[in-house]
Amino acid sequence: MNISGIIGYPITPFNNDQGVDFDKLRIVIDTLLTAKVDAIAALGSAGEAAYLSQTEWENIASYTVKYVAGRVPVVIGIAELTTEQALKRATYAHSIGADVIMLSPFSYYKLNDDEIYAHYQSVSDATPLPIMIYNNPATCGVDMSPQFMLKMVNNIKNAVMIKESTGDIQRMHKIYKLSNGEVPFFNGCNHMALEALNAGAVGWCTAAPCLIGDQPKQLLAAVKSGNSSKAKELFYQQYDFLEFIVKSGLAAAVKSGFALQGVDVGDPRKPLLPLSVSEQARLKGVLLNLDALC
Amino acid sequence: MNISGIIGYPITPFNNDQGVDFDKLRIVIDTLLTAKVDAIAALGSAGEAAYLSQTEWENIASYTVKYVAGRVPVVIGIAELTTEQALKRATYAHSIGADVIMLSPFSYYKLNDDEIYAHYQSVSDATPLPIMIYNNPATCGVDMSPQFMLKMVNNIKNAVMIKESTGDIQRMHKIYKLSNGEVPFFNGCNHMALEALNAGAVGWCTAAPCLIGDQPKQLLAAVKSGNSSKAKELFYQQYDFLEFIVKSGLAAAVKSGFALQGVDVGDPRKPLLPLSVSEQARLKGVLLNLDALC
Amino acid sequence: MNISGIIGYPITPFNNDQGVDFDKLRIVIDTLLTAKVDAIAALGSAGEAAYLSQTEWENIASYTVKYVAGRVPVVIGIAELTTEQALKRATYAHSIGADVIMLSPFSYYKLNDDEIYAHYQSVSDATPLPIMIYNNPATCGVDMSPQFMLKMVNNIKNAVMIKESTGDIQRMHKIYKLSNGEVPFFNGCNHMALEALNAGAVGWCTAAPCLIGDQPKQLLAAVKSGNSSKAKELFYQQYDFLEFIVKSGLAAAVKSGFALQGVDVGDPRKPLLPLSVSEQARLKGVLLNLDALC
Amino acid sequence: MNISGIIGYPITPFNNDQGVDFDKLRIVIDTLLTAKVDAIAALGSAGEAAYLSQTEWENIASYTVKYVAGRVPVVIGIAELTTEQALKRATYAHSIGADVIMLSPFSYYKLNDDEIYAHYQSVSDATPLPIMIYNNPATCGVDMSPQFMLKMVNNIKNAVMIKESTGDIQRMHKIYKLSNGEVPFFNGCNHMALEALNAGAVGWCTAAPCLIGDQPKQLLAAVKSGNSSKAKELFYQQYDFLEFIVKSGLAAAVKSGFALQGVDVGDPRKPLLPLSVSEQARLKGVLLNLDALC
Repeated sequence: MNISGIIGYPITPFNNDQGVDFDKLRIVIDTLLTAKVDAIAALGSAGEAAYLSQTEWENIASYTVKYVAGRVPVVIGIAELTTEQALKRATYAHSIGADVIMLSPFSYYKLNDDEIYAHYQSVSDATPLPIMIYNNPATCGVDMSPQFMLKMVNNIKNAVMIKESTGDIQRMHKIYKLSNGEVPFFNGCNHMALEALNAGAVGWCTAAPCLIGDQPKQLLAAVKSGNSSKAKELFYQQYDFLEFIVKSGLAAAVKSGFALQGVDVGDPRKPLLPLSVSEQARLKGVLLNLDALC
Repeated sequence: MNISGIIGYPITPFNNDQGVDFDKLRIVIDTLLTAKVDAIAALGSAGEAAYLSQTEWENIASYTVKYVAGRVPVVIGIAELTTEQALKRATYAHSIGADVIMLSPFSYYKLNDDEIYAHYQSVSDATPLPIMIYNNPATCGVDMSPQFMLKMVNNIKNAVMIKESTGDIQRMHKIYKLSNGEVPFFNGCNHMALEALNAGAVGWCTAAPCLIGDQPKQLLAAVKSGNSSKAKELFYQQYDFLEFIVKSGLAAAVKSGFALQGVDVGDPRKPLLPLSVSEQARLKGVLLNLDALC
Repeated sequence: MNISGIIGYPITPFNNDQGVDFDKLRIVIDTLLTAKVDAIAALGSAGEAAYLSQTEWENIASYTVKYVAGRVPVVIGIAELTTEQALKRATYAHSIGADVIMLSPFSYYKLNDDEIYAHYQSVSDATPLPIMIYNNPATCGVDMSPQFMLKMVNNIKNAVMIKESTGDIQRMHKIYKLSNGEVPFFNGCNHMALEALNAGAVGWCTAAPCLIGDQPKQLLAAVKSGNSSKAKELFYQQYDFLEFIVKSGLAAAVKSGFALQGVDVGDPRKPLLPLSVSEQARLKGVLLNLDALC
Repeated sequence: MNISGIIGYPITPFNNDQGVDFDKLRIVIDTLLTAKVDAIAALGSAGEAAYLSQTEWENIASYTVKYVAGRVPVVIGIAELTTEQALKRATYAHSIGADVIMLSPFSYYKLNDDEIYAHYQSVSDATPLPIMIYNNPATCGVDMSPQFMLKMVNNIKNAVMIKESTGDIQRMHKIYKLSNGEVPFFNGCNHMALEALNAGAVGWCTAAPCLIGDQPKQLLAAVKSGNSSKAKELFYQQYDFLEFIVKSGLAAAVKSGFALQGVDVGDPRKPLLPLSVSEQARLKGVLLNLDALC
């Protein structure tokens, strides 16, 4: 399973009783497919995976795989505090026919490299699914160096690709150089997409297509085709939007954006709060600039 | 419910099947009581609370309250990702007769002050138990300023005390100054105990008594009685040990120490790993220096 | 005076008596001109300006202007602790016919924005030379935000361009977006050259042409002409070298490189030490990879 | 030469022509002596040493030694960018009869441990004066670990004591533990004085006595005599003042305080600015609270 391009991240819609709203999830997935994403990654940060019960998590995973039905590959995010839970989720993802696991450590106690390595090894041993190593210290509380992630790619059978979300472009240069450009890596920092793609990222993991259609795909295409002035122009067009959704909280921002577009997907789960009124106004402005509001 | 002094933190013993070993938990609690702790705080960092199932968590909470049986107050730690889960735990803690809730935010998405405030307010509304606001950004992923915590103490009914674990002594000076010395705060950074107590902390939250008996209590007594040269001497005697358990991971270190003292409390839960052989040797050395090994 | 492209930075050669070796400085400047730099910036970090006496500084400035003799513009770096000294240097730079001043704050006490602003204003008032605002907190001890630097560009007459050296690509995005692409900015972080140029930097300030000829110019040309695969290839070819000279100390690294190429330019001035033997070996390796050693 | 206790730091008064005002310097030194300081340290941060010409620096050094005339020891601060300049200053300090050199690295390029070590070794070789190793990364741009500073004390003949100004109390614990309490260290962080002294600091380097008389000395005496409740009380009385002068810039704050007390010592040297009107008002408030204004 080789994936690349735009990996779209659905949010998790909630209904008035704070349950998962699967009708709306269908609309969210449709939105991503219409935006020409190359894969769909359920249960990432945008999907508030950390805030779901195990049952909710499983239902969303299986719904997504079933509804996407092979039109694009489906990635399932796993970020659990215990290895036992991660194994349970990975086994489930495999059982329902998911294509890829996006696995990140998630920490209360800081984890050392031995602990993280063993965690990935266990998941790799438990399922045949390819693993995307996902580094996002801002949410997960631990940082993995390029060297360490490449060591895992080289030694752990199913660990075959990397998603880098620190926002430090040098990490990508290191991955590229140390692997002679052979280990595929994805950009996980929205407002660094231009340089990540220019630096050799094979794709861009983003919830942006939930709100701005195929504009991220156009940016990726411009870079891949060597049209650098077009790429720069598209990137700066999207910049304020991309920075906004990162800085104001991905789930809250995308949910607010759906509401502005007429799709009520509910609020994020507490303690997360929806955008403030002034943040909503700012989001409205950046969406208008991108012709993403009627 | 006023608490002060040494708040002792049990670890969570596991048996060979990775289940909670309540016989050993009894020994751990006895150890703390023998060490003359002034209260017992179940389900903190040392207790690997973040790595337990809800059932395990509830069983440990109720066992602890029952076994302690009023000999000292029992504090129950709550660090949940969702407000709903925190409420469930808080209500349970109250239902079993716990005395105090130690409440910290725990984050995947960074939380802003409004989100944290609403989280504390909800828990305060749900139970009459006094709340210790617990700030530990290294584990919980969000940082609360002294100003913000005091605002919560002033405005949220049951928020009545603070545990500060950043390791920055200036935070304690700020709490003391801004509250005119009237809001009780506890030290949560073991190897800063001397200065915290001199700066006005009413107590010290620590797992150290699990392994070194009443030596922390002696240090506290020396400070409280104004015997500063004795306090300094005791602090530096314990310093290597206190720094070691912080730096090497509290649960792993204390569990390893119990093993060295002949009590098998199992390993921490994966992905956490036990101390390495060289770390165990170092722990053995610092325990020997404190006459804490036969 | 509009400058853009590759701004080449000479090192300051010392002779055996630790005096400035002007014969060697001539060779260094020739090397840069042969490397097709678009301007020469004397007395920057690479030139150890902070370690020179006022007389040495003035002699190097005037020698450089005279020897370059209009073939390319000459930029003079000024990073003084007092405003009085900065004015003296700026006036001197103007008197000898320099084209541009590169001005950075340099701090013992941290400076606030008011202090920095007044410093720039004073220099602008004292000479008609255009000023490149240079932000390099790692050496100068104070950080200027894109917003603040643009405020100076908008309000201080001669402040007309920016050199950004923090290594954070987002700073450049901010400069570009907030100025609608109208304020020229230069890349000052060697191993971020690819993304800086793709992000809209009008040039790259670098000592690299001292050692690897026109390879930086080729990289710049590839980006400017929209040949992004060529740009990526050239960047990764140079990457280890660019990172090395940044990480190991620019002056020491470039001086060591000259020695490897057969030009003895002396050691950096103490307390700066020359590269260690193992660092020299590493530098030899990266230069060989770039065909920069016979 | 053993020094301990309160080391008082004069500011450098300037007259209307921005020259050094020695009449006012005499008043400043008298103020410190009246405040019962145990030594006087000329040309530290408070003295704006980094902003003086060599001639000014030498004149202040010699004036101070002559005027103090052995009533207390005189320490001379040296923080030069080049080793050559540091040697010149050290030799001068010895020639005029100073008692101790307070030596810190000062950096444009970050310095590695080898470079710093050689710098100290050179100064030690050049004069017989005892050296106080001064670590203040916030102003000097490089950080020295306790381990490294103790290595210098153990191996460099005249390096015999340490001044620690990072504000991290753990540094002091490390110095104390690793040297078995045998290497004297001073507190250089005003608003950490209480814990530094409790942790074993032999003294406190401070400009506070310029404005609040012997109150710092009283605090030190309370700690040294084991009167910990008195020490705590005195510390919190002074806390707002101590924090203020650190946070708002030592030289500017102390000069403003002198003006409030009726002694015009001029402004700090540009780019440093005097306190803003609102900062002056705040300073007035904290001085009034300490009965330090008529």
